[in-house]
Amino acid sequence: MVKEGRFPDQVRLVVFDFDGVMTDNRMWIGEDGRESVACNRSDGLGLEKLRQLGLDLFVLSTESNPLVTARCRKLDLPVEQSVRDKADRLRSLLRERGIAAADVVYVGNDVNDADCMRIVGCSVAVADAHPDVRHLADVVLRRPGGHGAVRELCDRLAAHIACRYGS
Amino acid sequence: MVKEGRFPDQVRLVVFDFDGVMTDNRMWIGEDGRESVACNRSDGLGLEKLRQLGLDLFVLSTESNPLVTARCRKLDLPVEQSVRDKADRLRSLLRERGIAAADVVYVGNDVNDADCMRIVGCSVAVADAHPDVRHLADVVLRRPGGHGAVRELCDRLAAHIACRYGS
Amino acid sequence: MVKEGRFPDQVRLVVFDFDGVMTDNRMWIGEDGRESVACNRSDGLGLEKLRQLGLDLFVLSTESNPLVTARCRKLDLPVEQSVRDKADRLRSLLRERGIAAADVVYVGNDVNDADCMRIVGCSVAVADAHPDVRHLADVVLRRPGGHGAVRELCDRLAAHIACRYGS
Amino acid sequence: MVKEGRFPDQVRLVVFDFDGVMTDNRMWIGEDGRESVACNRSDGLGLEKLRQLGLDLFVLSTESNPLVTARCRKLDLPVEQSVRDKADRLRSLLRERGIAAADVVYVGNDVNDADCMRIVGCSVAVADAHPDVRHLADVVLRRPGGHGAVRELCDRLAAHIACRYGS
Repeated sequence: MVKEGRFPDQVRLVVFDFDGVMTDNRMWIGEDGRESVACNRSDGLGLEKLRQLGLDLFVLSTESNPLVTARCRKLDLPVEQSVRDKADRLRSLLRERGIAAADVVYVGNDVNDADCMRIVGCSVAVADAHPDVRHLADVVLRRPGGHGAVRELCDRLAAHIACRYGS
Repeated sequence: MVKEGRFPDQVRLVVFDFDGVMTDNRMWIGEDGRESVACNRSDGLGLEKLRQLGLDLFVLSTESNPLVTARCRKLDLPVEQSVRDKADRLRSLLRERGIAAADVVYVGNDVNDADCMRIVGCSVAVADAHPDVRHLADVVLRRPGGHGAVRELCDRLAAHIACRYGS
Repeated sequence: MVKEGRFPDQVRLVVFDFDGVMTDNRMWIGEDGRESVACNRSDGLGLEKLRQLGLDLFVLSTESNPLVTARCRKLDLPVEQSVRDKADRLRSLLRERGIAAADVVYVGNDVNDADCMRIVGCSVAVADAHPDVRHLADVVLRRPGGHGAVRELCDRLAAHIACRYGS
Repeated sequence: MVKEGRFPDQVRLVVFDFDGVMTDNRMWIGEDGRESVACNRSDGLGLEKLRQLGLDLFVLSTESNPLVTARCRKLDLPVEQSVRDKADRLRSLLRERGIAAADVVYVGNDVNDADCMRIVGCSVAVADAHPDVRHLADVVLRRPGGHGAVRELCDRLAAHIACRYGS
């Protein structure tokens, strides 16, 4: 089920969930209890393109893990972890920055992303998101989390913006 | 082969095998001989929902590995490892807790789960379980172990309970 | 392309290549240059069954890596690594043990297994073996290396032996 | 979309991108921020064959990571990392070695490989390359990066050379 909803006319901010969006929602756990996740190198070039187009980017994660910090630092993405109520934090973030919810794209994969997806101008689900989340989303990507979903969104958003501004 | 057996009218306890159910049955092994396994973050939200509905949860593993301890601690799941005869341990567990076998769901993936599956009210196999186990199971899930099988079971059990109690 | 060649009437020894048979032929490499591979827990129960049926098991690997040692120790499999000429070593192994090549099953996945496969009574390729190796093999398994190929072979060999000896 | 462009009559040098070609473009990141990637053992036999046929091999990577060094050392491949402008470096490499661009094969997977692909005699994309790169390539492999793409190219190049020189 791919859904081809429209992106907002003016996109100012893109907010990403981490696990299941930047990863395939799996985590490797070792005998010392330490975790690893699998990210995708292709995301970097896409995020860079959005940044060059002037978009703000942000990562909101319920989990708290130094690997999220490490990955986001490498991608030069601002991140906030241990976020119990993502929708609450998203609202305060928009207030702080003076950004209208209508100008925000939110990318998620599970039911704890649902409230954020209801707030924003355009909600996006990865291809392998939970059925309830795919149902709710304006746009359902062709690619699963951690396997090109972020890059696909970046490419499509960049094309949308190029199209509007004739860049 | 998906099988749509019925869940028990009253579910009191759900017992999970670990390898092949909470993981894809693979293990990564490094040069120091230490192992890692790949679990799925989506399981957490599902197990939490079952707990809120008052179900008891338990993990029985033949293997003994600190990574199982670490994963189960994170999911807040009681676990017993190094269990040679799982059916024997399951019977004693039910006696200790005064739970009828008819009210138990057991989720497994390989032939060493067969005896447990024959005891309980409802036996569940992951999509990629051993053929003998899929044949034996009351319910065969759509999703493979480590790739959403646990979450699928939790979602379906929660819907079953909501349906019965009109929650 | 699945091939259903016959197993030998009397199987005395099963020889396995390691990488690509017990693994998916991938290796993870870290910043310290140390490697990991992904094995499958399902292999253990199958190998145990063959051992109970009295078969000898052996692993021959061109690579040399402590992780092979660790994995084989866990599976209680004798292993020889750094084997430049596998066919030469296989011939000497058969002489040492007084086993006829006709009574041997060899499982491989790449062209450096071809000479061994030509020697033995029954050569087996995993589903995702190199095309030249699949072409050469008496039996091509349904399952890829590291994803159940070893277990499939064990189950089929055990059924073959049960069938012959009415076990 | 498989594309069956012709290899150059005389191939002197094969240049590989690393991430997404020798790997599946994913990277595992741990809590200490250190990365791992998944390579394929099958690549080794293919690269060895090309070397025996007298071809020069080279790896150009935008990333800089000790794991690239480790993997290339194991494969006995010369590598240059932290290459901002790959096309610029490729041109200087050809000048240094007195190799005509027409005699070069370049294997890539993402848009930062595009300029190199436009320069060389034969540009090759892995099966799961970015759509823009597949569009641009002379040859699109059947196999994805990290899952046999390099080996497939080596096998096909070796067959091409054998065919021309009647090896």
